[in-house]
Amino acid sequence: MSYESVQCQDNLDSVGVYECEVNLKFRMIEEKGVLQDREQLLSVLLEAFGYGADEYLEAMHVHAEARPLPETDASPELRRQLIRLRNSREFQ
Amino acid sequence: MSYESVQCQDNLDSVGVYECEVNLKFRMIEEKGVLQDREQLLSVLLEAFGYGADEYLEAMHVHAEARPLPETDASPELRRQLIRLRNSREFQ
Repeated sequence: MSYESVQCQDNLDSVGVYECEVNLKFRMIEEKGVLQDREQLLSVLLEAFGYGADEYLEAMHVHAEARPLPETDASPELRRQLIRLRNSREFQ
Repeated sequence: MSYESVQCQDNLDSVGVYECEVNLKFRMIEEKGVLQDREQLLSVLLEAFGYGADEYLEAMHVHAEARPLPETDASPELRRQLIRLRNSREFQ
C-alpha cells in the first residue's frame, strides 16, 4: 500500500476501510519437503501462485473481493489511522 | 517454484502433486479508486497482504493448506510434467 502516490488529496473521503477476501485453490507439482513446514506454508503457496499458472501449477478456483466497510465497524486502530491520514491531508 | 535447488535427486518420488488452498480475510485502508479495477483486484490484494499486518491492514482469517493428491487425480498436463521431471532426474 503505497501512500506516496496519492492522487486525490483534495477529497478527504478518498480513503476508506475495505473488507477483503481472497480464496485460491490450485494444484501444483512441488518437492515433498517444501510444503511440510506449517510456518512457511502460506508464504510458499502465495509465492508459487504469484508466478502464475504454468506446467507446474493449475488454478482451480480464484476469488477476490473487496467491500467497503462502514467505518463504525472498523477496529479502533484502523479508525485512528484513517483520522491520521485525513488530518495529514487536510494540512498539506 | 525453483527446481534449480533440487536437493534429493536420488529419490524419484521426491516430487508430487499437491492440492493447495489459501483463504484470506482481512481489512485494510485503501484509496477508493485502487480496488475498483476487477482485473487488478487479486494482485492488489495479494500485494497488500504480502506486506503483512500494520496500521493499514488487519488480518481476520488466514488459512493455508496443501494436501498430496493421488497422481491419477491430476490433469494429464501435470502428470506429463511429473514424468518429465522424474526422467530428467533419472539420467542426471
